[in-house]
Amino acid sequence: MTAEIIAIGTELLLGDILNTNAQYLSRQLADMGISVYYQSVVGDNVDRLKETLKNAMNRTSIIITTGGLGPTTDDLSKETIAKLLDLPLVEHEESRDRIIDFFKNRNIDMAENNLKQAYIPKGAIVLKNDNGTAPGFIVNTKKNTIVVLPGPPSEMKPMFESEVKKELKKLNEGVILSRTVKLCGIGESTVAKILQDVIDKQTNPTIAPYAKDGEVHLRITAKTDNETEAVNLIDDMQQKVDEYVGDYIYTTDEKTLEETLVSTLKDKNLTLSVAESCTGGMLSGRIINCSGVSEVYKEGLITYSNEAKMKYLGVKEETLAKHGAVSEETAREMVEGLISKCKTDTAISVTGIAGPTGGTAQKPVGLVYIGVHYNGTTTVKKCNFYGNRQKVRTRAVVEGLIMLWNLVK
Amino acid sequence: MTAEIIAIGTELLLGDILNTNAQYLSRQLADMGISVYYQSVVGDNVDRLKETLKNAMNRTSIIITTGGLGPTTDDLSKETIAKLLDLPLVEHEESRDRIIDFFKNRNIDMAENNLKQAYIPKGAIVLKNDNGTAPGFIVNTKKNTIVVLPGPPSEMKPMFESEVKKELKKLNEGVILSRTVKLCGIGESTVAKILQDVIDKQTNPTIAPYAKDGEVHLRITAKTDNETEAVNLIDDMQQKVDEYVGDYIYTTDEKTLEETLVSTLKDKNLTLSVAESCTGGMLSGRIINCSGVSEVYKEGLITYSNEAKMKYLGVKEETLAKHGAVSEETAREMVEGLISKCKTDTAISVTGIAGPTGGTAQKPVGLVYIGVHYNGTTTVKKCNFYGNRQKVRTRAVVEGLIMLWNLVK
Repeated sequence: MTAEIIAIGTELLLGDILNTNAQYLSRQLADMGISVYYQSVVGDNVDRLKETLKNAMNRTSIIITTGGLGPTTDDLSKETIAKLLDLPLVEHEESRDRIIDFFKNRNIDMAENNLKQAYIPKGAIVLKNDNGTAPGFIVNTKKNTIVVLPGPPSEMKPMFESEVKKELKKLNEGVILSRTVKLCGIGESTVAKILQDVIDKQTNPTIAPYAKDGEVHLRITAKTDNETEAVNLIDDMQQKVDEYVGDYIYTTDEKTLEETLVSTLKDKNLTLSVAESCTGGMLSGRIINCSGVSEVYKEGLITYSNEAKMKYLGVKEETLAKHGAVSEETAREMVEGLISKCKTDTAISVTGIAGPTGGTAQKPVGLVYIGVHYNGTTTVKKCNFYGNRQKVRTRAVVEGLIMLWNLVK
Repeated sequence: MTAEIIAIGTELLLGDILNTNAQYLSRQLADMGISVYYQSVVGDNVDRLKETLKNAMNRTSIIITTGGLGPTTDDLSKETIAKLLDLPLVEHEESRDRIIDFFKNRNIDMAENNLKQAYIPKGAIVLKNDNGTAPGFIVNTKKNTIVVLPGPPSEMKPMFESEVKKELKKLNEGVILSRTVKLCGIGESTVAKILQDVIDKQTNPTIAPYAKDGEVHLRITAKTDNETEAVNLIDDMQQKVDEYVGDYIYTTDEKTLEETLVSTLKDKNLTLSVAESCTGGMLSGRIINCSGVSEVYKEGLITYSNEAKMKYLGVKEETLAKHGAVSEETAREMVEGLISKCKTDTAISVTGIAGPTGGTAQKPVGLVYIGVHYNGTTTVKKCNFYGNRQKVRTRAVVEGLIMLWNLVK
């Protein structure tokens, strides 16, 4: 069973809004075992919409459109679809009554053109809209199932949940399941090389690596007749992955790296403090985005200036003079200063040159020292990151999370 | 001049990630006077990608693809495009050296398959990648200009800015100029209502409001024969905007809100310190993303726990007991504690309930108190933000920046 999602609206083509509907529907369909082969976006233009619909009807069986069901003259999804399928538009009484009530209940005068929304292609299954005025509908032809939904996510999503899912389930045979195995501390190409054999031989389940800001995610997807079998297939594949790159796996559920670190620290009853120079709060900011982090995260010091490094962390003036603020020695004194000042079980320090200025031949932009402390031992790592200021800082944050997680896991 | 944007990647079709590249590129092209007629998304599949490319080449002149340039075997954009255009892939020496250096500088072993990324269709314009290993490229055929870009936004956007724009400008006749007037402290619908008349009458230049995390951006775009005329048209429109909502404009160039604040502080020789509870470093992290911020930003304290609030900022135990950590009184003591501890000219404090837990009827999730201090005066604002943890924190960060900027501007 294959599908195409078509979003209709010139505002998408102008970049005014983000096509979040496509992501939502893709995920929903994947979970139902329907393979989305294409997503398309087209403007409120009859000819181009017609062409896009024809294309989709030729290449996939299920088509879901969003948008273009409003009351104004530039909303023409319904009219175009009806014409293409050679179906007349007929008034749907229940929808008409719902529209009139919608305005009455809100004490708003209804514009006459709103009643245009009650017209539906003859023979279509009408999808009622509990959150707006435009009903959706489904037309089944010999070859295709065409699902037409309103554009606003607040109307589209509840309609999909309550009305569309059950109709699509009638069409579907089998189950599709996905699981993401998340790795850190290893590059995408290295993972791909190590798993080359597994990747080359993949049929069902499939496996695909994705790189993501210093992490690699492996997506395992199985298609079968029933859920138990799908889980077994995925478990088998995960076991293979585990044999090859198990040391780098930090989670096999939907957790982020920082959530994994925070829950490990919480499980082991360990507290954390953080000192940041070039990342300037980003590392703490990410850790504190984990709800319930207060048991773990105690204090954070943003010691951007040399004075602050001395004042709060006790970094020695001679260390800064001799080795510089961006040095192994400073990173070490920062993290050890944290431990003695904050009395936490673990600590992370970051000092580096994020650029674009401040780099030299000896200490180029991207040079970052990261210190971690756990169980009486301090480790400092020298990193050379690439990219603009924001990217260098993001990579430093991820590296700090990875280093501590590797120590405490 | 018409264009189609094609995003390539199975992760998009599975709904794992949101297609933000399409929005970014659509807006960029709109600003350059290029009409985007279609956006498409297709998976890492040779046949479907080929079909999608063929379709696009028939119906639009400019095609921009993103994604599928990674080092692994399922990254096949380049190979498919080269085959379709009947161009051999040849090694691009400079790219090869850049890739080798990339790994060498980071002290990472390079997997052999990374060198695959240095191969480029013969005769293509190579687009260098300052933020990753995969170069992009442009192929000009008789009918089409095909621009091939990497998928990660952190690589794609800088490449578009520095390399692609100038190539696309060569294709364009006439001049299209855009300017963004950025406002803060006012909502999008209020701006739209105040400017209703101006927006209704727009022809050339056009004007469009965009809402963005507590800010409103007004995009003014003029199409003319020469640059002087375009600048004049935009100046006239900007003057009108200024008459209506001038008080809320913080910049008319490409600066961000934090860059505007930092440069104002720098101009006035003022220093800054920051204390954060629920935002936990995000506010400092954003300020410190401004290059050269060290003259301004002195110290930051992430006082997530009550103990830290007392220890570093001298917040009184009875204040916390009587009014709670999330209160006007605590925000005030935090910001005043900063001033006396850090001896800076200005300071910002944030304390709030970001959720999802921790809210009560009296103090619901989204309640945030923000304190600012300047010129001997402390101001505390009570805010009620909506949304998830990340959103509440982001809005608090923006509000903190706005409050201080309004004081010092």
